[in-house]
Amino acid sequence: MKVIELNKNFDRKLKDIRPSIGGIDQNIVNTVSKIVEDVRRNGDSALFKYTRRFDKFDLNTKNIKITGKEIKKAKDEITTKIRNHLKISARRIREYQKSLLPKERTYRDRLGNELGFAVRPIDRVGIYVPGGKAAYPSTVLMTAIPALVAGVKEIAIATPAPNGELNSVVLAAASISGVSEIYRIGGAQAISALAYGTDSVPKADKIVGPGNIYVALAKKIVYGEVDIDCIAGPSEVLILSDGTGKPEWIAADLLAQAEHDEMAVPLLVCTSINFAKHVIKEVKKQLKDLQRRDIAAEAIKRNGRAFIVKSIDDAIKVSNAVAPEHLELCIKSPKSVLKKIKHAGAVFLGHMSAEAFGDYIAGPSHVLPTGGAARFSSPLSVYDFIKMPSVISVSQKGFNKLSGSVIDLAYSENLEAHALSVKVRMKKFNN
Amino acid sequence: MKVIELNKNFDRKLKDIRPSIGGIDQNIVNTVSKIVEDVRRNGDSALFKYTRRFDKFDLNTKNIKITGKEIKKAKDEITTKIRNHLKISARRIREYQKSLLPKERTYRDRLGNELGFAVRPIDRVGIYVPGGKAAYPSTVLMTAIPALVAGVKEIAIATPAPNGELNSVVLAAASISGVSEIYRIGGAQAISALAYGTDSVPKADKIVGPGNIYVALAKKIVYGEVDIDCIAGPSEVLILSDGTGKPEWIAADLLAQAEHDEMAVPLLVCTSINFAKHVIKEVKKQLKDLQRRDIAAEAIKRNGRAFIVKSIDDAIKVSNAVAPEHLELCIKSPKSVLKKIKHAGAVFLGHMSAEAFGDYIAGPSHVLPTGGAARFSSPLSVYDFIKMPSVISVSQKGFNKLSGSVIDLAYSENLEAHALSVKVRMKKFNN
Repeated sequence: MKVIELNKNFDRKLKDIRPSIGGIDQNIVNTVSKIVEDVRRNGDSALFKYTRRFDKFDLNTKNIKITGKEIKKAKDEITTKIRNHLKISARRIREYQKSLLPKERTYRDRLGNELGFAVRPIDRVGIYVPGGKAAYPSTVLMTAIPALVAGVKEIAIATPAPNGELNSVVLAAASISGVSEIYRIGGAQAISALAYGTDSVPKADKIVGPGNIYVALAKKIVYGEVDIDCIAGPSEVLILSDGTGKPEWIAADLLAQAEHDEMAVPLLVCTSINFAKHVIKEVKKQLKDLQRRDIAAEAIKRNGRAFIVKSIDDAIKVSNAVAPEHLELCIKSPKSVLKKIKHAGAVFLGHMSAEAFGDYIAGPSHVLPTGGAARFSSPLSVYDFIKMPSVISVSQKGFNKLSGSVIDLAYSENLEAHALSVKVRMKKFNN
Repeated sequence: MKVIELNKNFDRKLKDIRPSIGGIDQNIVNTVSKIVEDVRRNGDSALFKYTRRFDKFDLNTKNIKITGKEIKKAKDEITTKIRNHLKISARRIREYQKSLLPKERTYRDRLGNELGFAVRPIDRVGIYVPGGKAAYPSTVLMTAIPALVAGVKEIAIATPAPNGELNSVVLAAASISGVSEIYRIGGAQAISALAYGTDSVPKADKIVGPGNIYVALAKKIVYGEVDIDCIAGPSEVLILSDGTGKPEWIAADLLAQAEHDEMAVPLLVCTSINFAKHVIKEVKKQLKDLQRRDIAAEAIKRNGRAFIVKSIDDAIKVSNAVAPEHLELCIKSPKSVLKKIKHAGAVFLGHMSAEAFGDYIAGPSHVLPTGGAARFSSPLSVYDFIKMPSVISVSQKGFNKLSGSVIDLAYSENLEAHALSVKVRMKKFNN
């Protein structure tokens, strides 16, 4: 883990402080474009072809949708303990999302015009759930439940079945969330099927959920035809420390990010070099016995950084420049610092708030903006699954008072018919 | 204007009821990609080169930013009347957006954990304002003011200056909104400059505002590097009529959409064929003397439709299938119908609520989802300019009660380090 001491005048370094994860291979872009276009044009037959090629099993119109029987079997396969934990998690996610849901509202202005917005759920949402090694049942809960709380009536999950094999815990998590429409499809071909629809897979209005680079690029390509949540990159944590608390806790949290994949970004920003060195020693120690030590070690080596700063304010500057997905405030008075935090996906306050609580059980979705997207994006929530159409009702008084402005402004934009659409309504008074 | 009678069993037609505006020319996509990439790599020099080529004037580091003097001059050039109308509009937009702004909020759950979200403005926003014929000062107000109300500190406007000529009303509108950083750049090259930054144009975090197909495609390409609002298409209105009110008013509103451009979509859905015929007659009559009659006539011919339906419920089905940008409920009891409307950008209630009020003065932004995007998108608002990072503070009691779930779920996902990051914190109690 690289130690970087930031002294005076480090402001100009801030722009490049985030470890670069490199560009995108144009060959992959071309491959993904071709797959997306093929499925758009040729529907099921292309979808089946790519599933055979990448997931190595024969998909057809009969087996594409996972049956109720298969879901029940999967639910029976997981332990009662895990089932109960998933239920506790589901309940907490549901409660949190309910607390966010905005209520539709109109008000009357001084002229008696009624203004405001309605709240309407999206009709149909597709959720991508990765398969294989990175198949996380928690992600099913963290994406499906916000959609359900928002009032989405149709939710379809797409999850790949490498060699035809399903992940029981994913199916169980879907069932616990309340989703029963699940397709055994994955990759760019699944995203295209959800975006454009095929004979077997109805078209969705929005596609959410994480995936590998193929899935992320496919989502970007279909964006516009459907909405998407965000383009997910490797997971990140920035731990802001004032040298209080236990180095071994902070080390453990850095490793929890690092074990996700080799590209994960574990950052420490600390006001004490001695404490930071202690943390690094602990990282090395804990790394030794870790199941996923090769992955975690590679992430620490590539992207691990310990920034040493002069003050908490400098630490905040670093954090705001990184705009991390996860931010832990491992300091004495986290609340006093929170108001200075400008960009982050989720902020964890205090020493007890290990990031893993956010991954599984706290309530807010663990689908968060990565790669600096916290500069402009929010965590996945009910807001991603509703629209708020404006509602405008012009009163007689409002019409009388404002029509002159509309007419003159329309003429100033050379939009005569706009002006006339108001003028024609004035005749009532003139005739 | 084509009359289409929808009798029984029209449900299966709904899928294709929206007039198709055709696909995108791959040559344009390639051209735009090249421009975006060139500006990304070569910054100012590429930006200046394309400005010379497309806008026909010499751009350089000295003249790229419009001066305070130029803005003042532009403001003096417009009439007092227009200046006052713009101020009234600005005030109403500001008031409406203030009413939307969410307040940050946390709550304690039963275990004493604190959960909620902060509200933070985006740091820097780029607004694209078209030049030439479609330069609308109202769009400056409708994009800049929501950003300002959200608390955005840095707002940069990009607006093309064909042959070096500026649009005074656009500059005046920017000044009235409170924006003084304006660049005389346009097209895909301006979007790329805002997205990646050049020596003269600082990088933005989000780019909003309408534009032609080059601008729309460039926005899609840079999406991910920065956020964007939406990919804007031709303007649309769907007028839902129960045969009450005046045919000439409805005709005028259809023409107000049609005059925007040849691709605009003016739709009528009416329960009375006689009334609809009356509206069509009025459209023809009013069209004759219109300044922009060639554009409006072409839009009516291409995309104009009068759907005749058996009932208001059938009319609503048609509207929900179209998901129009603007929806006028020209019926006796618009409020009773509002709750059945699933998808629309903005809904105008009753005969007096001409859509033009929404364009200029009502308050809600006139930047709305087009092309069916109302299925998944909302009007531009303060929500586009804030992020809501999650806030998670785990209490001692919460830790004790929930750590078992986190540990077991982490193991079930083969994320041992996640489990250990909780276990390490339990030592406190065990030692």
